[in-house]
Amino acid sequence: MSSHPVAHKIPSTARAAIITEFKKPFTLSTNHPVPSPSSLRPGECLVKIEYAGCCHSDIHVRDNDWGGDSPVPLVAGHEGVGKVVAVAQFGNGEDVKYRGEEEGIRVKVGDRVGLKWFANACLRCESCRLGRETNCSVARATTHGYRVDGTFADYVVSWTDYVTPIPKAIPDSDLPMITPMLCAGVTIYKALKVCNAQPGQWVAISGAGGGLGHLGIQFAKAMGFRVVAIDTGASKKSLCLSLGADAWVDFVETGEKFVQEVQKAAGGLGPHAAVVAVGHPLPFNQAVMYLRLAGTLVAVGMPGGGGTLNVPITLMIAKTLTIVGSATGTRQDMAEVLDFVVQGKVKCIYQERKMEEVNEVMDELAAGKVSGRIVLKM
Amino acid sequence: MSSHPVAHKIPSTARAAIITEFKKPFTLSTNHPVPSPSSLRPGECLVKIEYAGCCHSDIHVRDNDWGGDSPVPLVAGHEGVGKVVAVAQFGNGEDVKYRGEEEGIRVKVGDRVGLKWFANACLRCESCRLGRETNCSVARATTHGYRVDGTFADYVVSWTDYVTPIPKAIPDSDLPMITPMLCAGVTIYKALKVCNAQPGQWVAISGAGGGLGHLGIQFAKAMGFRVVAIDTGASKKSLCLSLGADAWVDFVETGEKFVQEVQKAAGGLGPHAAVVAVGHPLPFNQAVMYLRLAGTLVAVGMPGGGGTLNVPITLMIAKTLTIVGSATGTRQDMAEVLDFVVQGKVKCIYQERKMEEVNEVMDELAAGKVSGRIVLKM
Amino acid sequence: MSSHPVAHKIPSTARAAIITEFKKPFTLSTNHPVPSPSSLRPGECLVKIEYAGCCHSDIHVRDNDWGGDSPVPLVAGHEGVGKVVAVAQFGNGEDVKYRGEEEGIRVKVGDRVGLKWFANACLRCESCRLGRETNCSVARATTHGYRVDGTFADYVVSWTDYVTPIPKAIPDSDLPMITPMLCAGVTIYKALKVCNAQPGQWVAISGAGGGLGHLGIQFAKAMGFRVVAIDTGASKKSLCLSLGADAWVDFVETGEKFVQEVQKAAGGLGPHAAVVAVGHPLPFNQAVMYLRLAGTLVAVGMPGGGGTLNVPITLMIAKTLTIVGSATGTRQDMAEVLDFVVQGKVKCIYQERKMEEVNEVMDELAAGKVSGRIVLKM
Amino acid sequence: MSSHPVAHKIPSTARAAIITEFKKPFTLSTNHPVPSPSSLRPGECLVKIEYAGCCHSDIHVRDNDWGGDSPVPLVAGHEGVGKVVAVAQFGNGEDVKYRGEEEGIRVKVGDRVGLKWFANACLRCESCRLGRETNCSVARATTHGYRVDGTFADYVVSWTDYVTPIPKAIPDSDLPMITPMLCAGVTIYKALKVCNAQPGQWVAISGAGGGLGHLGIQFAKAMGFRVVAIDTGASKKSLCLSLGADAWVDFVETGEKFVQEVQKAAGGLGPHAAVVAVGHPLPFNQAVMYLRLAGTLVAVGMPGGGGTLNVPITLMIAKTLTIVGSATGTRQDMAEVLDFVVQGKVKCIYQERKMEEVNEVMDELAAGKVSGRIVLKM
Repeated sequence: MSSHPVAHKIPSTARAAIITEFKKPFTLSTNHPVPSPSSLRPGECLVKIEYAGCCHSDIHVRDNDWGGDSPVPLVAGHEGVGKVVAVAQFGNGEDVKYRGEEEGIRVKVGDRVGLKWFANACLRCESCRLGRETNCSVARATTHGYRVDGTFADYVVSWTDYVTPIPKAIPDSDLPMITPMLCAGVTIYKALKVCNAQPGQWVAISGAGGGLGHLGIQFAKAMGFRVVAIDTGASKKSLCLSLGADAWVDFVETGEKFVQEVQKAAGGLGPHAAVVAVGHPLPFNQAVMYLRLAGTLVAVGMPGGGGTLNVPITLMIAKTLTIVGSATGTRQDMAEVLDFVVQGKVKCIYQERKMEEVNEVMDELAAGKVSGRIVLKM
Repeated sequence: MSSHPVAHKIPSTARAAIITEFKKPFTLSTNHPVPSPSSLRPGECLVKIEYAGCCHSDIHVRDNDWGGDSPVPLVAGHEGVGKVVAVAQFGNGEDVKYRGEEEGIRVKVGDRVGLKWFANACLRCESCRLGRETNCSVARATTHGYRVDGTFADYVVSWTDYVTPIPKAIPDSDLPMITPMLCAGVTIYKALKVCNAQPGQWVAISGAGGGLGHLGIQFAKAMGFRVVAIDTGASKKSLCLSLGADAWVDFVETGEKFVQEVQKAAGGLGPHAAVVAVGHPLPFNQAVMYLRLAGTLVAVGMPGGGGTLNVPITLMIAKTLTIVGSATGTRQDMAEVLDFVVQGKVKCIYQERKMEEVNEVMDELAAGKVSGRIVLKM
Repeated sequence: MSSHPVAHKIPSTARAAIITEFKKPFTLSTNHPVPSPSSLRPGECLVKIEYAGCCHSDIHVRDNDWGGDSPVPLVAGHEGVGKVVAVAQFGNGEDVKYRGEEEGIRVKVGDRVGLKWFANACLRCESCRLGRETNCSVARATTHGYRVDGTFADYVVSWTDYVTPIPKAIPDSDLPMITPMLCAGVTIYKALKVCNAQPGQWVAISGAGGGLGHLGIQFAKAMGFRVVAIDTGASKKSLCLSLGADAWVDFVETGEKFVQEVQKAAGGLGPHAAVVAVGHPLPFNQAVMYLRLAGTLVAVGMPGGGGTLNVPITLMIAKTLTIVGSATGTRQDMAEVLDFVVQGKVKCIYQERKMEEVNEVMDELAAGKVSGRIVLKM
Repeated sequence: MSSHPVAHKIPSTARAAIITEFKKPFTLSTNHPVPSPSSLRPGECLVKIEYAGCCHSDIHVRDNDWGGDSPVPLVAGHEGVGKVVAVAQFGNGEDVKYRGEEEGIRVKVGDRVGLKWFANACLRCESCRLGRETNCSVARATTHGYRVDGTFADYVVSWTDYVTPIPKAIPDSDLPMITPMLCAGVTIYKALKVCNAQPGQWVAISGAGGGLGHLGIQFAKAMGFRVVAIDTGASKKSLCLSLGADAWVDFVETGEKFVQEVQKAAGGLGPHAAVVAVGHPLPFNQAVMYLRLAGTLVAVGMPGGGGTLNVPITLMIAKTLTIVGSATGTRQDMAEVLDFVVQGKVKCIYQERKMEEVNEVMDELAAGKVSGRIVLKM
């Protein structure tokens, strides 16, 4: 097979941060093999990564916290933006013109694209046909930095059907900010989309000052919701209020009055929805207490170590509550996220670091020392 | 105040089954005071009960299982059909004509009506305005046989805005069968309405052979669903299949293969929805295991003694599940239930007993000896 | 019957603007009889009007444009705010305490309330039970200033179940601004609620500079939509853009390129929804042309003289369009409107005039000379 | 390029019915060129047709009624079932294994498939991502028998992503009955899916005795609706009632009382939804008259010659109606249709004819002489 003729010269080896052993720092390689364009299988493309975001999930994968038994050695990382440098081709190099390429609907060599946790979807199974491609029953194990090589590398193979085209309206200078949108951004946006609240209603965001939460406040405001930001500490309070939160509740300071204070902040009857984006089970269980009658709890944070939602069944019924589990979003959700960015409604607070510092960054993340998001420049 | 002139002569005392002490049999009185029509407050009416249904909740109330501290002495019972014998009136007996009376939309003396668990709703608060009148924040404690006098009596006060008019198409001979529709019927129907399944999809009903479940199979079929009936024992199996269930899974016989067998029965991928109408937490926790990706669990049974839904948060998220708590239905849900009865789509299997046997009936219910529903003839 | 004791002294006659003959100016009376509290029928209350809004529909009713044959003589007007001065009572003046009064859910003497086009709903029929009370099949003819006396009077009878409680957070000084919210505001808000757009999507508002439209821009922005404002003239352009419209299209200036320009303004593919709030059929028929595939047209303006929507059926099908007819909103929609006002999201541009100028105001309205809304101080 | 090794020997020419000149009978060729497997472009497959259904749209295309200017010469026909005999391949014949092939999610040589009006979708554009692939902005002109060669041929090229896999549970002997499901079936099913009715409610089907309508009655019953069948004549009446229609209204016999009779048949208030599957504008305009308040009209029939929906705007608003344009369905809708067939809920009444009789069949269709559907055996 062959690829489009490419101006870009693809080296045979390049840098990569690799999980070689669970619970150990990534191995930094400077001569990791780069797949040759001719080895690409149907549907694959080769992407030169420019920025890669650092997410807490990278630590969970590295430490095998979820019992996923990733196929090590494996390149880590699952948020990235870059350029397509090769696309799998039919036949012997002849120039097949794909419909949709000209409209920017089908990516081609030279396009700027984003890579996400989910790396592919079959687009044919029941889940895909229903527009729930993240539940794809064929491709579900194809996840960057977890089941297939990820974005902490100069070059990575991904899938033309599933990479995210970056809209022309986004300048190159904004690419680092776009990186966290590909995971944190779309995840919290999707959670807000399924929270059943309508414009003008109250949504509580638990973990509001964190990576997902600080984006969540901005999306929620862009969607017309009123936001109760829940987190702790003066700097997070100030961040949340500056991003537009309508009310702030410190879960440490309020102590036993926490539930009551959330309800008071949300018009007395409590929020219509709660989006919990934290890694502990307690805030989930508190949410069912403070939610308004007929409210909705969206579970989006993934607690390590088997956290469990414990809800008294009679409470569920008496309050006629709804609880929704939300994973990251689809290609359409992703497109909507980038559209909000283009409109200037949502910005990510980030700091840029070098690719070589990835292990130090992971340590800082694990220690809870990171505010906003860290993006590696490749 | 006064009432419409009534042909029916209202006695000053009559029979009633009364909770006088928690965890004791009802006290049967033959000379319980009957409220006089002139004592009716705005919105109230006096109903002569003809049939009263016996529900497991009556035992929970009698034994104060839910910690509700009902205001004893209290007449028990919360399912009943009868005739309006008096309506609270304006002024000094003058004949005010209410709009809607002629259309049968507003009940008047002589009308056949049904009484339900929820006895009233303000129709003005946010919940009521949103069509969720069972969440009414003003009237929520007004529940027959729990917070106000119930249907195990010859005469009971209820509310004109909230009693259920019995359609003319239902003959008097069907009234005993209607009685359980006012609680069991509307409760399971509402659960199916909020289960997010569409016609042709699979719904598992847990407790399929019971009071709620056996009606649920019929409603589910009338709604176009395919039903996996879950229960145990040959007689329940035969009942469920005769009512139209498409598949049967015995939770005792299948043992450790239970989850797998439910999925197999439901097209391999598992049911799109599960309605759990049983009083134990286990079936709720199993449902999240067997549900199809993006499936919905509706919790409708009320386990005594603090049953808890224990769901691994990562499972909720990975499967993008929804869990919905559903209480009984609204006036509109109730009207739809009766419409299905008129169409001949749903029938209740019941046996008729005498009012004086109510304590024996409760014992039989508690012992799990009752198949179908028991209805007391007053 | 009797009323609560009232501090306010109710006169036996007062001012009113009355339709005595169709197509003639209102008759201004200074000694129109005021209903006595004791004559109030069940569910009625007497309201002292403080402000009444002037709407184009008042002219249609006055001129019998809709063929409704209003029962003249009839007090005109259907937007009003005032105070409850009497409520129909049970019995002989005894003090019945209604549940919900203390929570502000049921209005009582002294409460500030709003009166709307729809003056009552039975809250019992199928439409009401489904939360579509403006379709009430019992009370549907009960419309202020059209079928029953309206708000251009010092005192008017309305219905406790249906008057709108004015939230405490709204100061008396804002009452004139609230008046148009009771008709124009809730009508355009409801239209936006049923337009099927989601936050971030494009909504075209036709008639954007008018009474409904200028409120529509503000509601649309509060709901997270992007707005293409459609109208004509420099002053309307400037008004629309100042209220937050994202794009402006002048239907006169663009001429034959109109459809194309609307699509261009809305991201190239056209708006996801169009809300047409004008009195001519043409903009309705243009909307089906410029709408995006699978878009929704909401018809909310009422053209006089039998305007007709003419849609090629093959276009409807090929574009899989939806067309929705939206009347004014429900009590819940109204509460949401006032909540947006309390949040400071929506303001009405109005001028205050004297009640005695009502006929001049109608002439100005008919001549299209009014920008924003005119409110009469009573 | 090359194809999978195929047992089936593909001839170089075969039979086809071809539009060579508009408004003329099809030209029947016995030596129409068959595309060679090696000429297949990415995403294409070659299908050997076994049965092809005859639809009224074939006449509209032949006669260029819709002004589509199909690229003649063009093989006609857009409903077909057959077997995949070749699939476009990567590289030089090497055996690439596609994910999903083993699960039956991706079609491969030997699979039984169905071909539909829409022949392809890009699965990447906004419409496709939103699950509205029939609105695909890239592939929209790819329609069998209209823009690309159709199913009245022994061999035809289609697209692996878009052909419909025929479930194993359907025996070969049922294939002729499946053929009309690929167009008529999925079109009327989709219309019912978007009609906003809920189980137990009334749906009027206009054209109930026709090709779409007689399937519509069966789908509607399987979805729990009550059906008012509207058509004319004793044989259609008998057909409709035998298929389960709950009521019958003859639009000829009822004459001026038509609207009234439909309302009477549908519980007095009129049907909650109307699905109009006929080629004349009148029934569309009648539907807005007989629909219940807040009802939905689904337009699915395509009148020739520019039929127009003429709806008084004030009626749309006063009744708060919804009108929906529905084209044929998606791959998921199609899968659901076949699932209803597997369940035995829906059967197509058809007669089998020879391929050579296709022009006679078209004449019979045009003359309105066909009851049920005609299927050509290839």
